[in-house]
Amino acid sequence: VTAPRVSTARADLEMHITLRRRSRTALHLQIADQMREAIREGRLKSGSRIPSSRQLAATLNVDRNLVVLAFETLLSEGHLSARSGSGTFVTTETISEIQTILEPQEIPRWARRTIIAPKTEPAPQAHEIAFRLGQPSMTELDLIAWRKIWRDVNRLAPFGDYAEPAGHLGLREALADYLRRARGLNCSANEIIITTGITQAAQLIARATLGKLDRIAYEEPGYGLIRQVFLELGARILPIPVDDDGLRVSQLPKGKAAPLLVYCTPSHQYPLGSRLSIPRRVTLLEWARTHGSLILEDDYDSEFRFETAPLPALAALGPDCTAYMGTFSKTLSPSLRVGFLVAPPGLLEPVLKLKTFSDYHTSIPVQQALAQFILEGHFERHIRRMRRVYASKREALVAALEPIQSFAPLKGLEAGLHAFLELPPEIDAQKVTDLTRTRGVIVRTLESFHHKPPVMNGLLLGYGGLSLEQIQRGVKEILWAVRQYTQA
Amino acid sequence: VTAPRVSTARADLEMHITLRRRSRTALHLQIADQMREAIREGRLKSGSRIPSSRQLAATLNVDRNLVVLAFETLLSEGHLSARSGSGTFVTTETISEIQTILEPQEIPRWARRTIIAPKTEPAPQAHEIAFRLGQPSMTELDLIAWRKIWRDVNRLAPFGDYAEPAGHLGLREALADYLRRARGLNCSANEIIITTGITQAAQLIARATLGKLDRIAYEEPGYGLIRQVFLELGARILPIPVDDDGLRVSQLPKGKAAPLLVYCTPSHQYPLGSRLSIPRRVTLLEWARTHGSLILEDDYDSEFRFETAPLPALAALGPDCTAYMGTFSKTLSPSLRVGFLVAPPGLLEPVLKLKTFSDYHTSIPVQQALAQFILEGHFERHIRRMRRVYASKREALVAALEPIQSFAPLKGLEAGLHAFLELPPEIDAQKVTDLTRTRGVIVRTLESFHHKPPVMNGLLLGYGGLSLEQIQRGVKEILWAVRQYTQA
Repeated sequence: VTAPRVSTARADLEMHITLRRRSRTALHLQIADQMREAIREGRLKSGSRIPSSRQLAATLNVDRNLVVLAFETLLSEGHLSARSGSGTFVTTETISEIQTILEPQEIPRWARRTIIAPKTEPAPQAHEIAFRLGQPSMTELDLIAWRKIWRDVNRLAPFGDYAEPAGHLGLREALADYLRRARGLNCSANEIIITTGITQAAQLIARATLGKLDRIAYEEPGYGLIRQVFLELGARILPIPVDDDGLRVSQLPKGKAAPLLVYCTPSHQYPLGSRLSIPRRVTLLEWARTHGSLILEDDYDSEFRFETAPLPALAALGPDCTAYMGTFSKTLSPSLRVGFLVAPPGLLEPVLKLKTFSDYHTSIPVQQALAQFILEGHFERHIRRMRRVYASKREALVAALEPIQSFAPLKGLEAGLHAFLELPPEIDAQKVTDLTRTRGVIVRTLESFHHKPPVMNGLLLGYGGLSLEQIQRGVKEILWAVRQYTQA
Repeated sequence: VTAPRVSTARADLEMHITLRRRSRTALHLQIADQMREAIREGRLKSGSRIPSSRQLAATLNVDRNLVVLAFETLLSEGHLSARSGSGTFVTTETISEIQTILEPQEIPRWARRTIIAPKTEPAPQAHEIAFRLGQPSMTELDLIAWRKIWRDVNRLAPFGDYAEPAGHLGLREALADYLRRARGLNCSANEIIITTGITQAAQLIARATLGKLDRIAYEEPGYGLIRQVFLELGARILPIPVDDDGLRVSQLPKGKAAPLLVYCTPSHQYPLGSRLSIPRRVTLLEWARTHGSLILEDDYDSEFRFETAPLPALAALGPDCTAYMGTFSKTLSPSLRVGFLVAPPGLLEPVLKLKTFSDYHTSIPVQQALAQFILEGHFERHIRRMRRVYASKREALVAALEPIQSFAPLKGLEAGLHAFLELPPEIDAQKVTDLTRTRGVIVRTLESFHHKPPVMNGLLLGYGGLSLEQIQRGVKEILWAVRQYTQA
């Protein structure tokens, strides 16, 4: 402990600074804290000059940079002010005076609105096995290619300007080619807008199109987060039931009651996993055209299909009335936050304006990396590899659940990274999840996916992010929990 | 040119495929195009089996992968379908039938809304010198450190899950430390939300707080993009004039007429460049507390100040009624799309919910890279370096404009990357910009910054992204243009 007395010929003041060198508080913070206290208590007077950083460092026997850092802090707080050429002084209007004038009020006006909360799953503990939906597996990523791409992207300094709101042209071109090959979409780079995911794409479309009182037809059960995005914007939700052929298109109101937008997941209904049949696709497009309505096609899981031919995208059949939304969240990783929108002509311009208002554009380095990942063929190689990986996980899930297939069928297996285990009415899905949770296995019921009370009973089993061994161990606990009810 | 006739024992159909090997259309696209045409014209009949890719490749004398690619395209379009074990067939319901049923309508209902357009500057041509606002210089970035950080960040595969909506904890902690040191903000990581820039922060706050009929006090002139963000959300803008001491706080309506929000740029008024004086800061905070209003402090340019001590941030003086917004767009690059918000307690939760609805969270790799950039000290080193660089650019600007200082004062020089050249009324700023444009020099007037017609006359000169030589050459043309009017 040192306690030097600082008093120099050039500085017209004294101060006591005591440094505790073993303290967990950094030395420059100790210096700043004590000088601030001295100023507030009046020991360092307004307008007085303080010693130079060099003098103070010598007296305190510390590196001069630490004193400079302390001075910078006090300068930025307004406790000190620098006059060029003549030194550093204690500010005349000290902040402590200002702060005593101003006292906080009761609840301010701006804090009175309430926002509807999205229902989010709490993150699972490390020891838990969580059958979470939409979780890709990252262990199979070609890390050598991944690292090389980022090295290439960051060889130069980042672009020093805002970029096009529609997104990096290289990525849009690579995507247009990919979507033509993989999904039969006949689109050009100019029709693509890079977003930060499907959530943003859906929000931008809703804001670009919805007027007051307009309604959105929404799959029931369906994706809770996007439904809440629409609700928060003031839209009215019209739940439309789904079955084993996807959205029950025949239930869409006709004439004046027709909703303006229809949100759907035709490749792998979220969450039940069914695919929208070809006749329903045709009917849906006819309905949309007749009523001047727009289809929001969320194609989040289309890349992962098993033992089945892909069905044509709605946007391939009816590009004039379909906004096609895709994402890298499942094919690569949700943490990148990159998705895309293929917009019909009338939608492109308003969505681009709103994209500019929202975040100007999506982060460029990430877009550049993804463009190169696609162009060099790594993306499609990754998808092919992952298709095999997920197929084997799916097989493991099917095999492990075999013992209860006679009364609890597993559905939605044709595509995607999750399946739906339908339970008979006498086995309460909620109680099963409560039981498995006591054994460290987290599964979800349909509840948060419903706008109205659920009619189906069962468990959603996301297997994409789990290992084969985790799937087997997890299902074992599910079987145990189910048996508590069948044997009772 | 080859024109083989494909006819095999196993496949029950014939097709004519003519490949032009010198064509610019890739071979697999030629194969797919001709097969599609054959299906549409009925030459390949519904339900008929097509040859295997191996057979067709041998017949056409091409790599089998090209045929597989062509088949994948047709499969994804729905023209072909695969039955496992028995081969590939022409789909029974062909797409061409579907497409003739469906004909586009006149203007659909969803395309009838109009969105207010943001006024954006067109990108300058390569030969032009554009005095653009908010353009940082990238040539001084420490590329060795930059590359190393990205190498570290991408050593592992990206995180395979969604992250916290508030942002990467490492970045929030690094920012909390930085803001304490640099801006005297006494905030913790838990009060910080990482955004994709100030635009997003402002939009989220407006959506979290504004009710119908609520008003936003806005600097006049002010930042056009954010004003339009508010207008698009249906907010009413209340223009408040600015002068050499910043926002004229005394003009804020009191009592029931007090606006709910006040947007301001106290460190370097955008675009005039003045700083909000200490007495006005105190008055503004008192006014906000009295009226339960919220201050949106846009501190975009605070890092670059010259020959002056920083003034305390409004959020340091009144953290209970100020939302502090910062960005990496000026200190590093706008193309990264990362900014941040320090929110008072009542604002944190609603903004986090809306952030989830908007894009879930900001891209993780970019956040990780910035966290490391700050933690390793590169960020503050970069700012110190850039302060010197911009100071010398500013000096070059001042020196070059010296000849007209007697009647056209240069203002807003204490901070930031741009200055304002005020012109006397007899010299029409718009005409000066038209003249300089003919000589390849792009400057802006105040027009797009105003909500109401402008009262001041002058040029905005962004110098951050220009070289010393460009500044000198550009100013030469400005002087020439100004002289056309003073001599006339």
